[in-house]
Amino acid sequence: PEKLKAEVVKIARNTKKIGEDDPRRVIHSFKVGLALTLVSLLYYFQPVYNSFGISAMWAVMTVVVVFEFSVGATLGKGINRGLATLAAGGLGVGAHHLASISGKIGEPILIGLFVFLLAAAATFIRFFPKVKARYDYGLLIFILTFSLVCVSGFRNDEILELAHQRLSTVLIGATACVIVSIFVCPVWAGQDLHNLVSLNLETLGSILEGFGDEYFRTSESEDGKDDKSFLQAYKNVLNSKTSEETLANFAKWEPRHGHFMYCHPWNQYLKIGTLTRQCAYQIEALNGHLNSKIQVMPKISEHFQEICIKMSLESGKALKDLAFAIKTMAEPCSVDPHIKNSKTASKSLQSLLELDLWEDLNLLEVIPVATVASLLSDIVVCTEKIAESVHE
Amino acid sequence: PEKLKAEVVKIARNTKKIGEDDPRRVIHSFKVGLALTLVSLLYYFQPVYNSFGISAMWAVMTVVVVFEFSVGATLGKGINRGLATLAAGGLGVGAHHLASISGKIGEPILIGLFVFLLAAAATFIRFFPKVKARYDYGLLIFILTFSLVCVSGFRNDEILELAHQRLSTVLIGATACVIVSIFVCPVWAGQDLHNLVSLNLETLGSILEGFGDEYFRTSESEDGKDDKSFLQAYKNVLNSKTSEETLANFAKWEPRHGHFMYCHPWNQYLKIGTLTRQCAYQIEALNGHLNSKIQVMPKISEHFQEICIKMSLESGKALKDLAFAIKTMAEPCSVDPHIKNSKTASKSLQSLLELDLWEDLNLLEVIPVATVASLLSDIVVCTEKIAESVHE
Repeated sequence: PEKLKAEVVKIARNTKKIGEDDPRRVIHSFKVGLALTLVSLLYYFQPVYNSFGISAMWAVMTVVVVFEFSVGATLGKGINRGLATLAAGGLGVGAHHLASISGKIGEPILIGLFVFLLAAAATFIRFFPKVKARYDYGLLIFILTFSLVCVSGFRNDEILELAHQRLSTVLIGATACVIVSIFVCPVWAGQDLHNLVSLNLETLGSILEGFGDEYFRTSESEDGKDDKSFLQAYKNVLNSKTSEETLANFAKWEPRHGHFMYCHPWNQYLKIGTLTRQCAYQIEALNGHLNSKIQVMPKISEHFQEICIKMSLESGKALKDLAFAIKTMAEPCSVDPHIKNSKTASKSLQSLLELDLWEDLNLLEVIPVATVASLLSDIVVCTEKIAESVHE
Repeated sequence: PEKLKAEVVKIARNTKKIGEDDPRRVIHSFKVGLALTLVSLLYYFQPVYNSFGISAMWAVMTVVVVFEFSVGATLGKGINRGLATLAAGGLGVGAHHLASISGKIGEPILIGLFVFLLAAAATFIRFFPKVKARYDYGLLIFILTFSLVCVSGFRNDEILELAHQRLSTVLIGATACVIVSIFVCPVWAGQDLHNLVSLNLETLGSILEGFGDEYFRTSESEDGKDDKSFLQAYKNVLNSKTSEETLANFAKWEPRHGHFMYCHPWNQYLKIGTLTRQCAYQIEALNGHLNSKIQVMPKISEHFQEICIKMSLESGKALKDLAFAIKTMAEPCSVDPHIKNSKTASKSLQSLLELDLWEDLNLLEVIPVATVASLLSDIVVCTEKIAESVHE
C-alpha cells in the first residue's frame, strides 16, 4: 500500500508537470472532447440520423483520427482525408461497375485484383520521401476507402448512396475538427516553428555569452549547477532536426494567421535551423573542453583570455540579437556591430598567434586554450552565416 | 509534351531508385495487397457475412491501418488495437447501461458527459512521453471505440452484439496482418536497429581510417569525390537519434527471432547510438579542418603526421571491429589491441607536445594541426567508451 501510494503520488506529480510544461496540452484535450461531443450530437437529431443512417459513425471516427495538436496538422489530415475519400470513392464506384458487368465468376476475381493492385501501388508510393511528408495519411485513407467501396459494393447495390454518405459524414467530421481547432485557442505549427528556431538561437547565444567567463574561471565551481541546465538545453538543439521538419510540414498547410502570410518562407527556417545545429556541434566540442577542467596557466590565459571572452561574448550577443530579430520579425540592425566585433577579435587572435611570445612556453599548455580559441573563431564564421540567412 | 515526358522519365527513375535502395519496400507493398485481399475474402463467404454483417468492414479497416513496414510496428499496433477495442468496448457498454437507467432526459446528457470526459482524459494521457512511445495508437482507438459504442448504443439496443462483432472483426484483421507480416519475408525492426547501429559505427570507422591520409596529403585532390559520399554518410549518423528510438520501440514488441531473444537489451543499442553520435560530432569538427585546406608546413607535419595517422587509423579500426562484433554478436576480442595502440599514440602526442621542439616555429601554423591532433585524441577516448558499452 505504501508503495502504491508513492506510485500514485509520482504519477500525479508527473501529470501536473506535463500540464504545466505546456498548458496548451490541457486545452487541447478539452478541445478534442468538445469536437467529439459536438459531432456525437448528430446521432441525437432524428432527421440527420435518418438521412445518414449508420454512416454517421464516420463523422465520429473522422474527429477522433483527424484532430491533432496544431492547426496545420489538423488541416493537413482533414484535407488529405477529404480528398482521398472523394478520389477513392469515385474510383471504387468505377471499379465496382467494371467488375459487375463482367459476369458472376469474373466479378470477385476482378475486384480482388483491383484491390490487390491498388493497395500495392499506393503502399509503394507512400515510400516516396516527398509524398510521405505531406500526403502519407491521404494515401492510407485512399486504400481504405477504395477497398471498402469495392468490397462492400459486392453486397450492397446502393453503392453510390454509400459513397455519398461516407463522403458527407467525413466532411462534417473534418469540418468540425478544423473549426474547433482554428477558433478555440488555436495552436499554430508555424508559430511553434518560429519560436523553436528563435529559441534555439537564443540558447546557443546565452551559452556562448557565458562560456568565456566559465572557461577562464574554472576554479569557481559554484556555477556548476547552472551549467548543467545549459548543457541539457543545447543537447536539445543538436537533435532538433526532426521536430523542425515536422513543424515546417504542418506549417505549410496553415492559412494566413498572425504575422504569417500563407506563403511564408518556411524552408528558410529549416536552413537557419541547419546552420544553428552546425553551430551547436561546435559548442558540443567546446563543451568537452569545459568539462575537462585543465588548469590554465595564468601566463597563457592572460594572452588569450581577453580575446576569447570577447569572441564568445560578441558572437553570443549576435546570436541573441538574431533570435530577437526572428522573434519580432524585424530587420536585425543591431547584429552587425557584434559580428564586426567578433571578427575583429578573431583577427587579433591570428596576429597574437603570429607573435613570437611563445618561445618559453610549454606547448602542451597552450594547446587546449588555442583549440578553444580556434573553435570559437569557427563559431564566429558560423554566426556570420546564420546572420546572412536571417537577412534573407 | 516534351516537358511532360521529361517529368514522367524523372518520376520513373525516382521510383526505380526507391525500389532498388531497399527492395523490401516492393515486397512490403505486395504484402499489404495480399493481406487486404485475404481479408476481403471474408465478404465473399456467405456464412461469415451473415454472422458479422456490416461489421466485416472493420476487418478491412484494421488491415489497412495496422499493417506497417516492420513486424514490431505491426504487432505493436495490432496488440494496441485489440486491447484498446476490448477495454473501450467493455467500458462503453457499461457507460451505456448507466446512462440508459437514468431516464429519457438524463441519457443524452450523461452520454455526452462520458464521451467528453473520457476523450479529454485519454487525449491528455497521450502526451506522457512513455505512453506516447508505445501506447499512442491504443489510446486513439480507445477513444474511438468508446465513443462509437456509447453513441451508437443510443440507437441500437443490440449493443453487446455490436461490441462483440467489432471486437472479433478487429481481431481477425489484426491476426491476418500479423501472420502475413511475420511469415511472408518478415522485416524485423530489431534486425534493422542492429544493422543501423553497427553500420553507423562502421561508417565512422572508415572515415577515421581514411582521415589521416586525407588530411596530410591535401594536395592530391583526386579523392575529392570519395570524400563527398563519406560526408553524406556521417551526416546521417548525426541525425540518427529519432530513427534509432523508433526502431527500438518497435523492436520491443517483437517476439524471439533469429539471434535475438525476446528480452534482447535494446536500450543498450540506444546507449551505443548516443556514444556513436558523440563521436560523430567530433568528426564533424574534424571535417571542418579537412575542408579548410590550409597548407601544412612540411616541417610541422613531419612531427605530427605519424602520430595523427596512427591515432585515426587505429581508432577507426577499433570502431570497425566493434561494428563487426556487434554484427556477428561475438565478443570483440580484436578490438583491444587497436584501442591500446591508439592510446599509445595519444600519449606520445602528449610527450611530443611537451618537448621543446617548437621554439622557432610559428604558432599560427602549429595550431590547426594541433587542434586536429587533440580532436583525434578526444575520439580515442570516445572509442574506448563505445568499446566498454559494446562489451556489456
